[in-house]
Amino acid sequence: MTPGGGRGPGGRRDRPVGAPGAGHAPGGHRAAGRLTGVGVGPGDPELVTLKAVRVLREADVVFVPVSAGGEPGYAEQTVRTHVDRPVQRLEFVLGDDPSGRETSWAAAAGAVARAVEGGAWAAFATIGDPNLYSTFTYLARRLPPPVTVDTVPGITALQDLAARAGAVLAEGDQTLALLPFTAGPERLAAALDSFDTVVTYKGGRLLPQLRKVLADSGRLDQAVFGARLGLDGEQLGPLPDGPAPYLSTVITWRPA
Amino acid sequence: MTPGGGRGPGGRRDRPVGAPGAGHAPGGHRAAGRLTGVGVGPGDPELVTLKAVRVLREADVVFVPVSAGGEPGYAEQTVRTHVDRPVQRLEFVLGDDPSGRETSWAAAAGAVARAVEGGAWAAFATIGDPNLYSTFTYLARRLPPPVTVDTVPGITALQDLAARAGAVLAEGDQTLALLPFTAGPERLAAALDSFDTVVTYKGGRLLPQLRKVLADSGRLDQAVFGARLGLDGEQLGPLPDGPAPYLSTVITWRPA
Repeated sequence: MTPGGGRGPGGRRDRPVGAPGAGHAPGGHRAAGRLTGVGVGPGDPELVTLKAVRVLREADVVFVPVSAGGEPGYAEQTVRTHVDRPVQRLEFVLGDDPSGRETSWAAAAGAVARAVEGGAWAAFATIGDPNLYSTFTYLARRLPPPVTVDTVPGITALQDLAARAGAVLAEGDQTLALLPFTAGPERLAAALDSFDTVVTYKGGRLLPQLRKVLADSGRLDQAVFGARLGLDGEQLGPLPDGPAPYLSTVITWRPA
Repeated sequence: MTPGGGRGPGGRRDRPVGAPGAGHAPGGHRAAGRLTGVGVGPGDPELVTLKAVRVLREADVVFVPVSAGGEPGYAEQTVRTHVDRPVQRLEFVLGDDPSGRETSWAAAAGAVARAVEGGAWAAFATIGDPNLYSTFTYLARRLPPPVTVDTVPGITALQDLAARAGAVLAEGDQTLALLPFTAGPERLAAALDSFDTVVTYKGGRLLPQLRKVLADSGRLDQAVFGARLGLDGEQLGPLPDGPAPYLSTVITWRPA
């Protein structure tokens, strides 16, 4: 693998990986700078790892995402619970405007690149895990090639929902599928046909359609819904009838 | 839901869920006791959550699993890094002997039930996440009904492998399947046909068969293998030719 801001085929970043716990860039070469994507968990500030807290304290600069749409910065809340230092906000456009998203990613990448010029180490705090449906992926891909990128995993919303619902995700030889509802109702229906546990992200705004797919599969009564877990306005229980936040999670099990 | 040691259909435990962060059993009723399954992450002692460390320190008694087959206790290593107190070992039989496994689960459940009699709070440390292919599931199911069970999620091996490999698990509308290779090569082949990212657990002892399924799907070059991550003897890279530990993880991506 060669240094680079892009990814190789198949989802792998086409760049060297920093050794776990290494100080800055590998080999003592600091000029290119380093960005660490830090998963800060699903919302509950206590569901952050010791490594995440250490990196957020030791990095030269800490970035947090804020939504241009006015959504609260969950990642920033968790960071501020554990780290008493200034943080820099990077604005991201969510939703259905591709050009707006691209512009915000490019601007954020530019801000990070400037911050790590000369070999500094930047941390970017992101909810959940930085390698699973994370804004961090889009930011990292747009960095100039010499910047070293690595990540610290974080607890995901699906794990938090399982724990809060008193549910088992999978055991023994059971299988699990995870997909965003934005991949399409057909993809969800196919997963429900063949997987024991099926987890759906990002279905909040299309909840009536999601309910119908679950009902058609006979799994509506074998489902638990969660949104804003561990935060004000937490939703946890059966699928609600009304609208729900975009960042929602639904876990369904195969009927006995 | 009613209190009970069993699970309802669809993988949900058929028992009440303790409120997050609640001290002992909900409602101040302590006589029945409580067991908290604590995910301590994939091996690296720094990949444990603040909540896990708190629970391991505050619980009245801490249990850790040890393998009857002589495997090192990864969970115990992580506990001992952060908690300076006695821990009680519970022996579990792994492998292909169902009656041996059942006997060890029942004995472990008996030891936990005795420990929480009178309303005590026990923590059981488990590698990874207690709700994902965890020994904890089998232990919890065998507890007598009045014992309250809850869990603290933990970082999984698949998340750690992705981070160490510099890999993205999923982004945008991509889909992810997770299954143990013990579910059968046909299940893996089907998942490779229709999912963008496919993660396989427990394939170490059947690695030649696993290689063949990946090769047949055209994904062998789009795969990363990990075992003993963050521990002595860590394996990380392409699929090895030789045998590998049972607790191994393989991530594959769809070819570009």
